[in-house]
Amino acid sequence: MFATLSLPEGWKAVQAPPSLFRRFEFASYQDTRAYLERLAALSKETELYPDLGFGTTYVNVTVYGKDGGTPGAQEVEFARRAAALAIPG
Amino acid sequence: MFATLSLPEGWKAVQAPPSLFRRFEFASYQDTRAYLERLAALSKETELYPDLGFGTTYVNVTVYGKDGGTPGAQEVEFARRAAALAIPG
Repeated sequence: MFATLSLPEGWKAVQAPPSLFRRFEFASYQDTRAYLERLAALSKETELYPDLGFGTTYVNVTVYGKDGGTPGAQEVEFARRAAALAIPG
Repeated sequence: MFATLSLPEGWKAVQAPPSLFRRFEFASYQDTRAYLERLAALSKETELYPDLGFGTTYVNVTVYGKDGGTPGAQEVEFARRAAALAIPG
């Protein structure tokens, strides 16, 4: 029904899909870049591509469910592994 | 199910409720304040209280449905009237 509402001009219907979120902080830009590389490899392996926002010393990771659906077991497993990759080894 | 997922430490399940959004821009801080006053009166009358964010020359209005539900006819009517209040009269 939300999609079919006739909205007054200039208004936007907003419906962000459910997601899992975590911010990872790093000591240096080099560490941040290294984490992004590891995350890219994890995405390639799992075919799960989260939204990423990053600055010199942080990466914000937002994991969505498939096709705008609710995150499930696969996304939770991705979240677990993404966190493990952020630990300096 | 989303609420019952067992998340890895540090992750947050994010589910923003659906909403209607519009940004209104004004020529001056005085106009912005006047609009906020009119909006407050509309909220009091309708008992609909949107989230507001504003700076010197803009107001961002986010209208949610009741109890985290989907915005419906009442919220659309609020949106229409909120827009009418933004027109210099």
